[in-house]
Amino acid sequence: MSRTPTHLAGAMFGTEPMAAAFSGESFVRYMLAFEAALARAEARAGVIPDQAAEEIAAACRPELFDVVAIFQEAAKASTPVIPLTRLLTERVQGDGKRYVHWGATSQDAIDTAIVLQMRDGLTLLDEGLLALGAGCAALAERHRHTVMAGRTLLQQALPITFGLKAARWLAMVCRQTRALRAVQAEALVVQFGGAAGTLASLGNQGIAVSKEIATELGLQEPDLPWHTERDRIATVATTLGVLAGAMGKIATDILLLAQSEVGEVSEAAEPGRGGSSTMPQKRNPVDAMEASAAARLAIGLVPVVLAGMVQEHERAAGGWQAEWAAIPDLFCYTAGALDRVRNAIAGLEVDTERMRANLTLTHGLIMAEALSMALARHIGREQAHQIVQTLSRRAIAQGQDLQQAAFADEQVRAVLPVDAIERALDPSAYLGSTDTFIERALQSYRQLIQADE
Amino acid sequence: MSRTPTHLAGAMFGTEPMAAAFSGESFVRYMLAFEAALARAEARAGVIPDQAAEEIAAACRPELFDVVAIFQEAAKASTPVIPLTRLLTERVQGDGKRYVHWGATSQDAIDTAIVLQMRDGLTLLDEGLLALGAGCAALAERHRHTVMAGRTLLQQALPITFGLKAARWLAMVCRQTRALRAVQAEALVVQFGGAAGTLASLGNQGIAVSKEIATELGLQEPDLPWHTERDRIATVATTLGVLAGAMGKIATDILLLAQSEVGEVSEAAEPGRGGSSTMPQKRNPVDAMEASAAARLAIGLVPVVLAGMVQEHERAAGGWQAEWAAIPDLFCYTAGALDRVRNAIAGLEVDTERMRANLTLTHGLIMAEALSMALARHIGREQAHQIVQTLSRRAIAQGQDLQQAAFADEQVRAVLPVDAIERALDPSAYLGSTDTFIERALQSYRQLIQADE
Amino acid sequence: MSRTPTHLAGAMFGTEPMAAAFSGESFVRYMLAFEAALARAEARAGVIPDQAAEEIAAACRPELFDVVAIFQEAAKASTPVIPLTRLLTERVQGDGKRYVHWGATSQDAIDTAIVLQMRDGLTLLDEGLLALGAGCAALAERHRHTVMAGRTLLQQALPITFGLKAARWLAMVCRQTRALRAVQAEALVVQFGGAAGTLASLGNQGIAVSKEIATELGLQEPDLPWHTERDRIATVATTLGVLAGAMGKIATDILLLAQSEVGEVSEAAEPGRGGSSTMPQKRNPVDAMEASAAARLAIGLVPVVLAGMVQEHERAAGGWQAEWAAIPDLFCYTAGALDRVRNAIAGLEVDTERMRANLTLTHGLIMAEALSMALARHIGREQAHQIVQTLSRRAIAQGQDLQQAAFADEQVRAVLPVDAIERALDPSAYLGSTDTFIERALQSYRQLIQADE
Amino acid sequence: MSRTPTHLAGAMFGTEPMAAAFSGESFVRYMLAFEAALARAEARAGVIPDQAAEEIAAACRPELFDVVAIFQEAAKASTPVIPLTRLLTERVQGDGKRYVHWGATSQDAIDTAIVLQMRDGLTLLDEGLLALGAGCAALAERHRHTVMAGRTLLQQALPITFGLKAARWLAMVCRQTRALRAVQAEALVVQFGGAAGTLASLGNQGIAVSKEIATELGLQEPDLPWHTERDRIATVATTLGVLAGAMGKIATDILLLAQSEVGEVSEAAEPGRGGSSTMPQKRNPVDAMEASAAARLAIGLVPVVLAGMVQEHERAAGGWQAEWAAIPDLFCYTAGALDRVRNAIAGLEVDTERMRANLTLTHGLIMAEALSMALARHIGREQAHQIVQTLSRRAIAQGQDLQQAAFADEQVRAVLPVDAIERALDPSAYLGSTDTFIERALQSYRQLIQADE
Repeated sequence: MSRTPTHLAGAMFGTEPMAAAFSGESFVRYMLAFEAALARAEARAGVIPDQAAEEIAAACRPELFDVVAIFQEAAKASTPVIPLTRLLTERVQGDGKRYVHWGATSQDAIDTAIVLQMRDGLTLLDEGLLALGAGCAALAERHRHTVMAGRTLLQQALPITFGLKAARWLAMVCRQTRALRAVQAEALVVQFGGAAGTLASLGNQGIAVSKEIATELGLQEPDLPWHTERDRIATVATTLGVLAGAMGKIATDILLLAQSEVGEVSEAAEPGRGGSSTMPQKRNPVDAMEASAAARLAIGLVPVVLAGMVQEHERAAGGWQAEWAAIPDLFCYTAGALDRVRNAIAGLEVDTERMRANLTLTHGLIMAEALSMALARHIGREQAHQIVQTLSRRAIAQGQDLQQAAFADEQVRAVLPVDAIERALDPSAYLGSTDTFIERALQSYRQLIQADE
Repeated sequence: MSRTPTHLAGAMFGTEPMAAAFSGESFVRYMLAFEAALARAEARAGVIPDQAAEEIAAACRPELFDVVAIFQEAAKASTPVIPLTRLLTERVQGDGKRYVHWGATSQDAIDTAIVLQMRDGLTLLDEGLLALGAGCAALAERHRHTVMAGRTLLQQALPITFGLKAARWLAMVCRQTRALRAVQAEALVVQFGGAAGTLASLGNQGIAVSKEIATELGLQEPDLPWHTERDRIATVATTLGVLAGAMGKIATDILLLAQSEVGEVSEAAEPGRGGSSTMPQKRNPVDAMEASAAARLAIGLVPVVLAGMVQEHERAAGGWQAEWAAIPDLFCYTAGALDRVRNAIAGLEVDTERMRANLTLTHGLIMAEALSMALARHIGREQAHQIVQTLSRRAIAQGQDLQQAAFADEQVRAVLPVDAIERALDPSAYLGSTDTFIERALQSYRQLIQADE
Repeated sequence: MSRTPTHLAGAMFGTEPMAAAFSGESFVRYMLAFEAALARAEARAGVIPDQAAEEIAAACRPELFDVVAIFQEAAKASTPVIPLTRLLTERVQGDGKRYVHWGATSQDAIDTAIVLQMRDGLTLLDEGLLALGAGCAALAERHRHTVMAGRTLLQQALPITFGLKAARWLAMVCRQTRALRAVQAEALVVQFGGAAGTLASLGNQGIAVSKEIATELGLQEPDLPWHTERDRIATVATTLGVLAGAMGKIATDILLLAQSEVGEVSEAAEPGRGGSSTMPQKRNPVDAMEASAAARLAIGLVPVVLAGMVQEHERAAGGWQAEWAAIPDLFCYTAGALDRVRNAIAGLEVDTERMRANLTLTHGLIMAEALSMALARHIGREQAHQIVQTLSRRAIAQGQDLQQAAFADEQVRAVLPVDAIERALDPSAYLGSTDTFIERALQSYRQLIQADE
Repeated sequence: MSRTPTHLAGAMFGTEPMAAAFSGESFVRYMLAFEAALARAEARAGVIPDQAAEEIAAACRPELFDVVAIFQEAAKASTPVIPLTRLLTERVQGDGKRYVHWGATSQDAIDTAIVLQMRDGLTLLDEGLLALGAGCAALAERHRHTVMAGRTLLQQALPITFGLKAARWLAMVCRQTRALRAVQAEALVVQFGGAAGTLASLGNQGIAVSKEIATELGLQEPDLPWHTERDRIATVATTLGVLAGAMGKIATDILLLAQSEVGEVSEAAEPGRGGSSTMPQKRNPVDAMEASAAARLAIGLVPVVLAGMVQEHERAAGGWQAEWAAIPDLFCYTAGALDRVRNAIAGLEVDTERMRANLTLTHGLIMAEALSMALARHIGREQAHQIVQTLSRRAIAQGQDLQQAAFADEQVRAVLPVDAIERALDPSAYLGSTDTFIERALQSYRQLIQADE
């Protein structure tokens, strides 16, 4: 189900805590937690004897069960619950044997166990997001005034600050945290419906038992059993998919900024990290690369879950079972992407000199819009745009700076004095609402962590 | 962008209102609405003269623009905004010409226009969901006590009522409606950042202008410009993906129930509908089939948008532009899926006799669990399960009813008297919490439409 | 990388031989095989001393390496080859140490190892397909004349034979086998290019060494190193995707035919197989269900590999690495889908009586086209179609047989005598080219296995 | 079905010829071609009168049919063939009316029409690939010796030549052309099976008619009707997906090389092309960007077709119909991606000076491996790697060139004389088998176009 470190994919694109949260062991442990909660709930509702519930709960100890054997048998039975309840019944001391899994169906145990795993997984992701938020917030504050090139379609466009870039990442991280919490509030519900979702075998005690199970496990009680209405699961999956996409965005920014020819950031150096098997000079953006791979793998699982929503009648033959692989992998890859981005951000080395130097790379053309706007105030946007476009082309052709070209241009000089041209061409004076935007992102983050305390 | 009725795909898997909402014409109209709002907002903030704003707004009339020409030029320019603003400038009377598109970037106009299209699209989906909810609620009420076979892994499992099935659909529809509204509240934000997301060319007026644009267009102001942070768009996309998946589920249930061998429902007959080009007797579940196709096409677009989130720097080269096709198609296919399911449900013919007849198809074996539970109360779940399994196999082998087999079985008779066996084997007496579940779904729907009034 | 039986997903949706073929152990073994082949090839080309090559090859024994440790270190290094070559160098006795990994890059070792794994994987799939072909061929022969309902849009349409259905599956299996072999011939090439794909460090010996490595490993030599041109890998992936889709089709046919209300096939009964944790009478189509889930999971990986083709420059940062998880999982899930379908087909129980009985379920309406064609010969297709459509509706409304309705209809009787009507309504007389089609599929299979001998 | 220029997506991410090939008009034209071929084939086989066939064929003129009306009616009927054959029957003069669509089913006409569209589409793609091949071949020849930085994980790694990069693209283009031709040979088969794939209504003339239809339309005859065995269609789809991925790779290389900070290539300048609505200096890689978007959209459709392979019985309810949208869009987007890459390559401006200048950007560290290999010949790979790694770090720390650092290092000097160090650090002397690889790719291309003549 999950991936252990023996698997390259798990080691490279996952995290150990998330692998543990979705391990086969945790799955069995939570199915047993369901069976124990079921027994206790039924005892409380007077459906089975208290003594039986105690005996069952006492036997629901994970260490008594052989996970490998259960899963191997599961392939034949089509569900791990058949071997599990058989083994559990064997392990129950006394009359409790008679009441194991009473009134429940396989899917009740499996779905509730997956919900419990998801609860742990969502908590881990929440922690990771807050840690990443802290890293982004630190960068946003520290580099609030670090001017660099903003780039559109991979071309230098206008100056921004690195603080603004970090603030945009931060704002996205805050939105993702809130999205995750919204889904926690909606999706963490118990599954309990019996074989066809009617709780038939519990007579008129079904609702009472359902409530008690939810209380017992700290989950919410859903409106109805949801054996083949998988919208909650799908929403968890898509929320993780969006989170993975967000991680891919930050990772890609790091990869691009770390290019040899850009050189504005690099991941923290560390022995054994980011080297090459053959090129001694390489310092590779390892975390960003792994995050990019993990994000792709996570996103690939989303349509599997969405297509899997198309489930037949009261229990699906295929679409549901595919979740057993898709959901754990989705959590593991999303956690991997988040972890690597968090790590890259935490140790990010920022070369502010290179950022400033890169601004001059286009002979001042990055300030073309600024000049254009300065002119436009006098002669209108359209004409100003054309003048500066001509100027830009001339500067490129003649290897001049835009400033030199502007000084030499009669149309420009007719409108703007020298100092106005100089002011128009100063990157750090052309940042508009940058500071407000950074402040807003930081505010949003502060609210998030205050709410959290 | 959207699909007109000349396209088979549009006709078969979309709807006309959604095609109109995402037509090229609506796209141009909303980009012009952005330009008009921008001019007015800038005039109000004192950035451009009032007169200019009036002149610009006056020229922002869709009928003055040739959509086909704009889009053809867009392919060369990489954006429709370049031809649009050129044409708009031509059409502005007076000095306003100088102030067209002042301080904005292509992406501001395009993203805001798509958000406005999405607002219309979400409203259409909301209406569709409420209509579908009404259909499901009617079925849930009418068939509250219509007993039928519940089916797991496509095998008859236990009795349910058709009202419960409809109630499960209804509960899902209600959850989807709430999810759609949550996304409406979060995602309908203006895009306004200028070329690199700093609003540099507006000096310190950027925020004020941004607020005014939002007010003007009835959208929310976002925390920050979000040119390459596409989580809101992605969340709209995934919400539609989940909705499409939900429609696929209902459509599949209809397709399965309408099978010749099941025959429990059929879509409404209508001239020219659901026939075959060669088989005169066919009455095909056309709506469910089209919904199934539309849902598949919708789901396929979700990973395109998610993978497209991985955007470079301050404007993406590919991932963003792919949205221009993916988002309209996603809305159109989702609307198509919803519309066809709504229509199928609205006219659904339910054969309650066939439902009851099908319950007897397995010689009473569908009541096996009920008998097992009745026995289990006396001899424990495990042993009861085994007795009934043996009984079931014997009944199958000998072509008997389960009831006959039970009457003839000594182990059963030792525990249960005849009338207890008969009671245990009555489907309509083995429905557990079915009624409560139906009531809950109806409640949830009533709350939704009351909140709506 | 691959999944062991401790993982539920591996146990339920994979196979042990494929898990072994793509295990971490096999990956390390094949990377060592590459290093050994490299050393021998370089010795043969005079690049490194013979003695060194022998020493290196001697140390390339998998049992000397700790797979878990290598993979854990790999996450930091971004590649398993850095720890692997370090450990290998430690293990080499003598001067050979100096020549380990000479002139190669990480990706050379990794890609070649994956190609070697894929070679094993493709062989396993080929074997599986032939076994499945044998099962389908047996069904096609045995049920050549077993009449059953053909179904379109899940409605009974016209009679076919079960042999024809099996023959269609068989023909698809034969085509898939040929597709697999085509990809084996194209894609099993060595990767060897050095750090940037120039083989720079081997001076003018690169080509010679490349040829020798290919010979050594039994792979083909490619035209050029293909570090970021992943079309071969992608073609392997898509070929498996198509195969998985084909398995999904067969599995779905089985699931549908096994429905309680259809009951025409069932999977072989076996202790511990296909039961329910709560419903004693259930006999679930376990293999078809697992195949359906596995096929979904396999298909989900295809776009990950396709999107991963978009690789940067001379080595990708993300798209390539994602293959390390996607390719093994794709092979495992495809193998799982194939294995379960093969098993389902091998033990398939066919209820020919139920097949014939189901033909009568629609009151003879399944023969409507036949009657329509018989009429059409006299009065044209259009008019015949309309008459029979009216007739069909009347038969449905009045609960008659189509035959009765036809006998009673003046328009029909004006054209066809009684015995012609009877002949027209006999399913086994209305099978057209069915027998030829079956024969063709069997021929195709025979050719495949003869070619194989 | 296809996209006209009124649609932004069509204009930006498709091509006009492909849109025409998959237009609604072409679809109707080819369905009529099927009906005409069917009639003629049946006349030749003696199934219908010659006169009838002539009358039918005479009415199969596209200009007689209203495509919009057909498609609107199709949505109700679930298939365009019902309105089409009704209208066709109306248009047939004389007794031929009786024999329209004789013995065929909707799917026969639709699938065969789509195969005919795909034939046109594959021809267009083949032409596009050859044109792209010509562009790549020209670059490979012209820049055979243009030294530039090879880059791995977006870091400068080793020198390559731009000719090698173009040769790698070329080799992939040649492989894709061959793959396309293989699929043309396999997949262009007629569909003809009648309502349930038995050709029942043609008695024993089915095979003969089928052969004649194939001859008439210039398609191959398949082994069996393939109504729900979609492996051929899926293989077409995946082949296009791989092609789209290949285009994405080339486009991404162009985008990266065209970055302001790299500046090694730019797309051809042209009025109205690649500008910005606000930044006058921008010259955007428009074609590469559009290709990237189109490739993403194309890849997104592949899993829709693969998942759609899972089809029910003898005709699918959803999976098949989804192809009607997915296949045309897939062809259009793939054509768009190919067209834009072809155009970008055809006009690509290569800045060879910038390429050489960028090689010096890392202070000679790009030659680190070369130095390492030169040392390794004397002291072994492992030790050499460590020396050069230390040297590299020192050079970075002290702002030196690697050459200076090497001259100053005692360990290096102990092994290599000055001129050997200089030789080791000359990029153009460290290209290994580059020239052979370029020659191989050119050879492969020449064979392809010779075979084509």
